[in-house]
Amino acid sequence: MKNFTSVHDVDNVQALVQDALSIKKDPYAFENLGKHKTLGLIFLNPSLRTRLSTQKAAANLGMNTMVMNLDKEGWALETEDGVIMNSNKAEHIREAAAVLGQYCDIIGIRSFPQLRNRDDDYNELILKKMINFSGRPVVSLESATRHPLQSLADLVTITELAPDFLNRKPKVVLTWAPHIKPLPQAVPNSFAEWMLKSDVEFVITHPEGYELAEEFTNGANIIYDQDKALQDADFVYVKNWSSYSDYGHILNSDKSWMLNNKKLYKTSNARVMHCLPVRRDVELASEVLDGQNSIVIQEAGNRVFAAQAVLKQLLMDNF
Amino acid sequence: MKNFTSVHDVDNVQALVQDALSIKKDPYAFENLGKHKTLGLIFLNPSLRTRLSTQKAAANLGMNTMVMNLDKEGWALETEDGVIMNSNKAEHIREAAAVLGQYCDIIGIRSFPQLRNRDDDYNELILKKMINFSGRPVVSLESATRHPLQSLADLVTITELAPDFLNRKPKVVLTWAPHIKPLPQAVPNSFAEWMLKSDVEFVITHPEGYELAEEFTNGANIIYDQDKALQDADFVYVKNWSSYSDYGHILNSDKSWMLNNKKLYKTSNARVMHCLPVRRDVELASEVLDGQNSIVIQEAGNRVFAAQAVLKQLLMDNF
Amino acid sequence: MKNFTSVHDVDNVQALVQDALSIKKDPYAFENLGKHKTLGLIFLNPSLRTRLSTQKAAANLGMNTMVMNLDKEGWALETEDGVIMNSNKAEHIREAAAVLGQYCDIIGIRSFPQLRNRDDDYNELILKKMINFSGRPVVSLESATRHPLQSLADLVTITELAPDFLNRKPKVVLTWAPHIKPLPQAVPNSFAEWMLKSDVEFVITHPEGYELAEEFTNGANIIYDQDKALQDADFVYVKNWSSYSDYGHILNSDKSWMLNNKKLYKTSNARVMHCLPVRRDVELASEVLDGQNSIVIQEAGNRVFAAQAVLKQLLMDNF
Repeated sequence: MKNFTSVHDVDNVQALVQDALSIKKDPYAFENLGKHKTLGLIFLNPSLRTRLSTQKAAANLGMNTMVMNLDKEGWALETEDGVIMNSNKAEHIREAAAVLGQYCDIIGIRSFPQLRNRDDDYNELILKKMINFSGRPVVSLESATRHPLQSLADLVTITELAPDFLNRKPKVVLTWAPHIKPLPQAVPNSFAEWMLKSDVEFVITHPEGYELAEEFTNGANIIYDQDKALQDADFVYVKNWSSYSDYGHILNSDKSWMLNNKKLYKTSNARVMHCLPVRRDVELASEVLDGQNSIVIQEAGNRVFAAQAVLKQLLMDNF
Repeated sequence: MKNFTSVHDVDNVQALVQDALSIKKDPYAFENLGKHKTLGLIFLNPSLRTRLSTQKAAANLGMNTMVMNLDKEGWALETEDGVIMNSNKAEHIREAAAVLGQYCDIIGIRSFPQLRNRDDDYNELILKKMINFSGRPVVSLESATRHPLQSLADLVTITELAPDFLNRKPKVVLTWAPHIKPLPQAVPNSFAEWMLKSDVEFVITHPEGYELAEEFTNGANIIYDQDKALQDADFVYVKNWSSYSDYGHILNSDKSWMLNNKKLYKTSNARVMHCLPVRRDVELASEVLDGQNSIVIQEAGNRVFAAQAVLKQLLMDNF
Repeated sequence: MKNFTSVHDVDNVQALVQDALSIKKDPYAFENLGKHKTLGLIFLNPSLRTRLSTQKAAANLGMNTMVMNLDKEGWALETEDGVIMNSNKAEHIREAAAVLGQYCDIIGIRSFPQLRNRDDDYNELILKKMINFSGRPVVSLESATRHPLQSLADLVTITELAPDFLNRKPKVVLTWAPHIKPLPQAVPNSFAEWMLKSDVEFVITHPEGYELAEEFTNGANIIYDQDKALQDADFVYVKNWSSYSDYGHILNSDKSWMLNNKKLYKTSNARVMHCLPVRRDVELASEVLDGQNSIVIQEAGNRVFAAQAVLKQLLMDNF
């Protein structure tokens, strides 16, 4: 593995999941693997889980980690080529990336979409240029279109908790949820492409107009009727996103899409997932979050082992 | 010891003070105790001394430390239960605390009061919910009503410097000082409750209307006449606070309350303490701060050993 | 060496450069030298290269590093003596420095000029008071008037790349470049004083009115005709600065001062340097930055080894 920016960077998804589960049992087994290796974690947007879980994963591997909130501690980056740099952007990503490559052996970067121009966002300029100009393995800490460390942790959690008595594949339903702000499509895009590479029955449900980009959902069963989609689900993944077709807009704030216990009863006693942060009683009913079916905390805990499996693989394959 | 949020969490105050003094002599004696243990330091407000001294204490014990300024690097937390989360608060402390508990073995948190609603502040929701939902030992890095790491360092400093020739208990005077801003009562509250658990003669002096909450000062000798209070003092602790009864307000800006050399002469050559930061010639005269009786820097230095004694105890009692 | 704030703190400049080059070959040779030693990196202004390279240098030496963006995580510092502290500045540098001295064995501090009052800036109050009141070795991470870690890395880079077939000293030209903002003189001041201590032919070229303070350029050959200055240059150092005589102002925005390939052809196939961040096609033409003569990334990479040589020397001389 050279970089970790999407499921397509992973040779063997199942092996990576199993490695994360092994690491969970013995987190310090490779605590010298990262000796003399430096991980740079560069944030252009806020982070709680991703920052702390990746920082801890690196520590478990004996890496030296340097965290920089470049948006706050540094300055704005120019990403376009061929522009005369007389704006408020003090440094071009070409130089910033190359310099980070001098100081770091592996670089993690978070860069959210602007949700203004779809082509700009889906072009993933920051991520691509970081790879091109740093000359180092790059880990996405959530980019404009994907959140692969989250998706790997999600799959680890599903694998860990899938009932083994089923004589069928576990049914996983990704359901759209209401929100007060327009959110990126990165988490659902990414979740969809990881599920489609896994041995599950995968269903997406959302109001009309909330179709995700086809490149992520090709092969998924899309059902507009949430009640029908939830039937017999073993896992329900709750997440809001803004419209892809009417890019970055909120088209619907129908509260009936919020998962509550009544809806949960339609499922096969499904475990409920969310990447967090979650807005209680907007996206997801408190009764569900505080109930026995919620696995959101275990899911967040698995972020450490997902990140650690990824860093371990990058260390082993690139050094 | 399960948590460290007030003097009431400590079984044996004197033993903890003595341990801090031992650590000061040999800071690396337990440098492997914290191996594979992660300390999360979460700040909802700015910090200089508390952050650096606790970070250093953890390093001396071999812990892995992750610092997060959640107010700046993350987002605002909801602390109320039962609210529909459609405000600017993106995450509930229930989830944030539980997630931090997944990544950290011990959690330190700083959360100042708002100084608007006394019940809200004195309810200590953030601290209590961090304890309830993280499932981890929690260290207060200053909460709405107390600053126990500061108070322990204060007591360590008094113990270290108390003249041993006295045939009486050392007299410690906490004196109110003027300030240009309304400040929390956390430091004086906390100092009072630690002094009242120690073998000192403890006096508080302040203008009328600045009475602290009784739960903290019960048993203290309160004298409104500063000159009289200072008589024969061995230690004078200078600190501003806003009114508790007329909550969060400044009732008095009488400059004559500022400690200067003339007032210091009334004491028994008292050592002068302050938790810092201090506003020179507003709270405390420069002539005192720069004079031989000031021990504010030694007091700040002892923050490391106080924090280290607390972390050591938590590591030994909980893992 | 007691502190590292300018070339004048260094006993033997050539020996320090050679040590940096040795460290580059074997970065972990002294990885235990910094054991139990804490480096505090205090930033009053943003930083990318300086922060990460110094943090990495300290890690390579086994030091414990604590980074604090005091301007964002803390509060404003008062630097004037004798003022009644009733402004927005919550702490005096006397206390802040002394407290940092309690927690850190070596202190690095970055403090840019205000570019309003020349005497204030050139007085270097923050740097001087940090030295006076911390009682610890202090490393400038760029002060109002100098950036010595940058200059040392620059000299390391020139030494590394100077063609050894020359039967003359390498010619180094510092050329002013246009910019959209008024920038400090710290980098050119510092570069000049390091070059004047080195075995090179040193030329400065800039428009009239951009003369640097004589204390830094005494002995340099100043040529106002850029084309003439660039002739036969082996290294061209490109940098903008604001006026020293008409302090902090932009006197000239003549785009013809920007280095491009046409100008580069006048040199002796010169390597092109810049401290970064650089504004493409404002300060320096993209065709040069992306061309074979640019060594700006190698120069930035050498920041690690320069910082490491300095920290190593301070550790060896002071502990």
